[in-house]
Amino acid sequence: MKLNWGMIGGGEGSQIGPAHRLGALADGNFSLVAGALDADAKKGRAYAQRLGVAPDRAYGDWREMLAAERDREDRLDLVTVATPNSTHFEITKAFLEAGFHVLCEKPMTMTVEEGEEIVRVSRASNRICAVNYCYSAYPMVREMRHMVATGQVGKVRLVVTNFSHGHHGNAEDADNPRVRWRYDPAMAGVSGQFADCGIHALHMASFVVGDQVDRVSADFASTIPSRMLEDDAMVNFRMTGGTVGRLWTSSVAIGRQHGFDIQIFGETGGMRWASEQPNQVFYTPVGERTQIMEKGESGLSDEAARLSRVAIAHPEGFPLAVANIYVDLAAAIRGELRDGLPLAEDGLRSMAAVHAAVASAKADGAWVDARPPMFR
Amino acid sequence: MKLNWGMIGGGEGSQIGPAHRLGALADGNFSLVAGALDADAKKGRAYAQRLGVAPDRAYGDWREMLAAERDREDRLDLVTVATPNSTHFEITKAFLEAGFHVLCEKPMTMTVEEGEEIVRVSRASNRICAVNYCYSAYPMVREMRHMVATGQVGKVRLVVTNFSHGHHGNAEDADNPRVRWRYDPAMAGVSGQFADCGIHALHMASFVVGDQVDRVSADFASTIPSRMLEDDAMVNFRMTGGTVGRLWTSSVAIGRQHGFDIQIFGETGGMRWASEQPNQVFYTPVGERTQIMEKGESGLSDEAARLSRVAIAHPEGFPLAVANIYVDLAAAIRGELRDGLPLAEDGLRSMAAVHAAVASAKADGAWVDARPPMFR
Amino acid sequence: MKLNWGMIGGGEGSQIGPAHRLGALADGNFSLVAGALDADAKKGRAYAQRLGVAPDRAYGDWREMLAAERDREDRLDLVTVATPNSTHFEITKAFLEAGFHVLCEKPMTMTVEEGEEIVRVSRASNRICAVNYCYSAYPMVREMRHMVATGQVGKVRLVVTNFSHGHHGNAEDADNPRVRWRYDPAMAGVSGQFADCGIHALHMASFVVGDQVDRVSADFASTIPSRMLEDDAMVNFRMTGGTVGRLWTSSVAIGRQHGFDIQIFGETGGMRWASEQPNQVFYTPVGERTQIMEKGESGLSDEAARLSRVAIAHPEGFPLAVANIYVDLAAAIRGELRDGLPLAEDGLRSMAAVHAAVASAKADGAWVDARPPMFR
Amino acid sequence: MKLNWGMIGGGEGSQIGPAHRLGALADGNFSLVAGALDADAKKGRAYAQRLGVAPDRAYGDWREMLAAERDREDRLDLVTVATPNSTHFEITKAFLEAGFHVLCEKPMTMTVEEGEEIVRVSRASNRICAVNYCYSAYPMVREMRHMVATGQVGKVRLVVTNFSHGHHGNAEDADNPRVRWRYDPAMAGVSGQFADCGIHALHMASFVVGDQVDRVSADFASTIPSRMLEDDAMVNFRMTGGTVGRLWTSSVAIGRQHGFDIQIFGETGGMRWASEQPNQVFYTPVGERTQIMEKGESGLSDEAARLSRVAIAHPEGFPLAVANIYVDLAAAIRGELRDGLPLAEDGLRSMAAVHAAVASAKADGAWVDARPPMFR
Repeated sequence: MKLNWGMIGGGEGSQIGPAHRLGALADGNFSLVAGALDADAKKGRAYAQRLGVAPDRAYGDWREMLAAERDREDRLDLVTVATPNSTHFEITKAFLEAGFHVLCEKPMTMTVEEGEEIVRVSRASNRICAVNYCYSAYPMVREMRHMVATGQVGKVRLVVTNFSHGHHGNAEDADNPRVRWRYDPAMAGVSGQFADCGIHALHMASFVVGDQVDRVSADFASTIPSRMLEDDAMVNFRMTGGTVGRLWTSSVAIGRQHGFDIQIFGETGGMRWASEQPNQVFYTPVGERTQIMEKGESGLSDEAARLSRVAIAHPEGFPLAVANIYVDLAAAIRGELRDGLPLAEDGLRSMAAVHAAVASAKADGAWVDARPPMFR
Repeated sequence: MKLNWGMIGGGEGSQIGPAHRLGALADGNFSLVAGALDADAKKGRAYAQRLGVAPDRAYGDWREMLAAERDREDRLDLVTVATPNSTHFEITKAFLEAGFHVLCEKPMTMTVEEGEEIVRVSRASNRICAVNYCYSAYPMVREMRHMVATGQVGKVRLVVTNFSHGHHGNAEDADNPRVRWRYDPAMAGVSGQFADCGIHALHMASFVVGDQVDRVSADFASTIPSRMLEDDAMVNFRMTGGTVGRLWTSSVAIGRQHGFDIQIFGETGGMRWASEQPNQVFYTPVGERTQIMEKGESGLSDEAARLSRVAIAHPEGFPLAVANIYVDLAAAIRGELRDGLPLAEDGLRSMAAVHAAVASAKADGAWVDARPPMFR
Repeated sequence: MKLNWGMIGGGEGSQIGPAHRLGALADGNFSLVAGALDADAKKGRAYAQRLGVAPDRAYGDWREMLAAERDREDRLDLVTVATPNSTHFEITKAFLEAGFHVLCEKPMTMTVEEGEEIVRVSRASNRICAVNYCYSAYPMVREMRHMVATGQVGKVRLVVTNFSHGHHGNAEDADNPRVRWRYDPAMAGVSGQFADCGIHALHMASFVVGDQVDRVSADFASTIPSRMLEDDAMVNFRMTGGTVGRLWTSSVAIGRQHGFDIQIFGETGGMRWASEQPNQVFYTPVGERTQIMEKGESGLSDEAARLSRVAIAHPEGFPLAVANIYVDLAAAIRGELRDGLPLAEDGLRSMAAVHAAVASAKADGAWVDARPPMFR
Repeated sequence: MKLNWGMIGGGEGSQIGPAHRLGALADGNFSLVAGALDADAKKGRAYAQRLGVAPDRAYGDWREMLAAERDREDRLDLVTVATPNSTHFEITKAFLEAGFHVLCEKPMTMTVEEGEEIVRVSRASNRICAVNYCYSAYPMVREMRHMVATGQVGKVRLVVTNFSHGHHGNAEDADNPRVRWRYDPAMAGVSGQFADCGIHALHMASFVVGDQVDRVSADFASTIPSRMLEDDAMVNFRMTGGTVGRLWTSSVAIGRQHGFDIQIFGETGGMRWASEQPNQVFYTPVGERTQIMEKGESGLSDEAARLSRVAIAHPEGFPLAVANIYVDLAAAIRGELRDGLPLAEDGLRSMAAVHAAVASAKADGAWVDARPPMFR
């Protein structure tokens, strides 16, 4: 039987709404049965119904949805929260407390304290709180994680990751509201580009290496002077096990489209993956030639194999990475929690790293503890 | 309201079944409500029910399905035929005659006569018979077609296309039944690799150029001697408007994974697209620099824009190209037949070209008329 | 001691002259001591002297040079012939007969008969007649030849090679004399693009596979209608040992810059090399991953190692491939004739293939024997 | 007339010797007439003579060479210093003081004070002291510099450059003398990988942007613990005009071969160049598509055009970048000093940046003034 799924946010015209709907529907695990899709209650109700939601479950806002859904027999199995960032905490917490599993868009919260609260609530309610670090669900990213875990590159000395694009590089466009809010502390919080894109890269570093960020040293720049928050950042880090990390993120890198990539360098080999060509990994055992690994090739790990849908060299892209998050969520809801699904603890760590990087940048690059207090 | 969708073939373990299900479900246009999924009736019924089909619509074979569905009030809006190649004709014809819209896997038929019959039946019944030339539904392939149609490369002088892979290159594996049947006339018909992969390339040449293949000259080779049909073919062609064509297809090109690409050379520009990197087109206006076009960039045609789901440089892959076929089918069923959906006429032309190429190869490369008799 | 080198043609403003001078001088094997560099005797003498040639060896034409040089004590060790194509035969023959070693630009001759004559003269005089198929002197091309010879891809089933560019694709530029002569039989002979570029690809196919072209089937097109000779050609071929060949060459492929590449597919592996990225080979053992081989990596053949000058991944380009021809010529002149240097026999085979392809194209693709009569 | 050239160091078996000889000889500007090629006087004399140097100019060491050459009528026009790093200062200074032009390998000196001394001596003697930052002599690097200078990317906000390889990544190989010395302060000085490779990247950033490094913040790591000096470094910097800089350099990046690249992001466009593909620049005007620029295309700057030897898309590589340094040196010696030749001031700035980065790394990333005292 399909699982009952509801969505908050992701209304008509949003970027993220269609990605979640495709992700949830693609594999036939979920049915969209409820939604509070828009800040404009009327528009949200109408749009939900056009998407096939019954009128009584097409809600005007999330509170109405929570009140109505908590007592239904056919209550929701999963709620996706895709609202503006500053509302993630309140909504996620409320649904977890009411006993719903939640998938929250990133960033999970705006502060470290809120992040710790979500972790506590999730644990106390015994509900899944997943965070949409969807890049980690690409088959070949799972393969890299598997390769590190099984020693195929040895102890990881160094991880180098970038998430840089140029789509905010036009100063004339800086006042465009779709761009400006990202650099306005009133809406974006303490960090601009690092909180927006950098944390995907930081999560992936931890995800692939299988270790956590211990401390950071950051250099932030607002290369477009009118911006109050950084549009370019370099964050050096160290992981608990000693791995050295380098993370560059930028939104003014004109010509880079979606420049998210990661390189892993261990004692016995190196690997490279890039989000614009997500179906390959370039793997070099020390002293040997570089090998091109392909999604779908024989001999990959179970994780990579089960999250790949079509044959070798038939490319699979971003929407199916989102879909893989829903595949793992469906399994988890049905009782099979798999290693790899990004959870509240990951969302919390990201927020701790953001605040640590901001503090470091303000202190001219001094090294700052990046661990959430509850994990120290 | 969702459209009612049924599937014939594509049972458990098949490659093509999951691609069709994802394609049909991803955008919420279709519900899988009926199926005859397996040659083994019992397995097919069980699998359909596991996929959520009601027991009374989980059929043992296509005849049972046809008999039951033709008279239902909530009859199917679309039937997908994904059975072994030699059965496509009979099933497709029967469902069309019974008034169903059909999406048929390629090749649509085994002979030209059968192809002409499908075209006649489709026209007489006024039902859509689509053929799954899914590569033509990639956003950037639609963009290339648009660019040619709007004169951005001038009159097309030359089209060069390849569909070559190496997955049948291991002679020790040649007796593997999953490989062998492709080169056995009893199962594959008159052609091996050209009928299997080459016709995708030939369809794309016609699709992008907006013209039809007039005549062909072919050189076939069975580079693994035990094969009765070709595993490598070169097909030169001419289009009605004079465009010169070159098509190479191979299944013994060890190291090529999914080497399907196309290059278009016109009087005022050239273009290149490759299926392993389907989100870019390399475009060169004559006398200028090559430009990298990206799916999702501003200024693309409506066709490319509406078939793209996520932002620029977020890759979209093969399963969503299949999904785009279903998007266009949903629109067509709802009354908006869009230019671009591959139809029975395209399936017929492919079969005529296959038979012409076979005849040419047997006649040492003599030029042979590749047009279906009914279109001469 | 440096070898004495003279040059005919390659005057001021020519493309090929500087490439030969750099090639001859780069490794310190040759000194430019004589030259008849220009059709304009006065300009040629002046230019030669500016290049450091003594006044008495700065000649007005090749006959004067031949007459003066043949009896000198310090006579030339090598003469390079880089004059217009139609003069290659006469000059090359004359210098060979006078006992000079010659490096001739391609095409060595305009007819098969002339080619056979050069072979005979070269043999009779016991002088080296090399032909500048310089691409074969790239280290990684030598490596591919070595790999085939030592069985690393097994028996070669298939070779696919292209030499296509778009620099003659502008019809408005077709009357430009620098372009037009290539398509004018009065100046270019029987073939346009195939004789100009295609024969490099054909030579390389033979060079890497280690076998000769037996017969060809060609499709020629003049996609710019004013041209009398082909600007696009597809040539299928078979080698003596049964290898299937496919060669596409074009000068109207707008957007391709220097699209010369080769793919080798054998029983146990495949390889790919491209002239725009000449320092890598992509090698795929059957059933394994593709490996990126790098010029300069450890473990390459002696041939590849000795023709590479700088460390791994420091790119080496076209001028040093020409230089490698001179390296091998210096060795040959000093008595160590190495396998790999392209000789008169290769120049002859190219001309036989050109004439065979022209005959085939005129006969609608009929298969034509491509072997020089003297080698049948 | 050819210029008289002598070389110190670069003996038999060295990597750098052949590159300099090819560079100096390739264009016919220089003759090798003197040399002190080896620390072993006897071997050095013998090797020089095998390279064609007259016996009386085949010296046992640089002091002997200096003493003999300073008073010759046909004295050297240029001396190349390619000895171990710690000797560069003494030799370069001595030859400059004796009135010779010098090309010094990098690093020019080991300390900032020595660097300032070379600048003073070079100025006082009015002799050219060039430093072999040869990457800056690639045609397309000159083109980028020209593009910045002429405003084609606007004010440069950000420069991101990497010089990372993995050739010292094998811990088992760390005791190999050819590797070990780089990480031993007794031989390498204060810095390992940054002084070895990073300064090429730092020079290029200044070269292309047309501005100087003002201050740096560095994070150094010895990822192979036995190393006393860094094998991986991240250096953030600011240029005088405010440009933000990011430089990553590593020698343990297994799988990267010669990963030297640079990205320039300005107010109106971005550019990208990589040393493994040195004949292209990827250029993106803000809001437009990325364009692939090719060495040899029409419309490039005079600088790019004159330093390119063969036609578009015929690759030119590292040895000819070195040769371009010699082309510019020949011009300078003949009286035409061109903008672009790297000089003692550049060598000094590199050394100041190395020492500043070392100081910063020791101070946990504190920002340190990177300007040589004499330029503050």
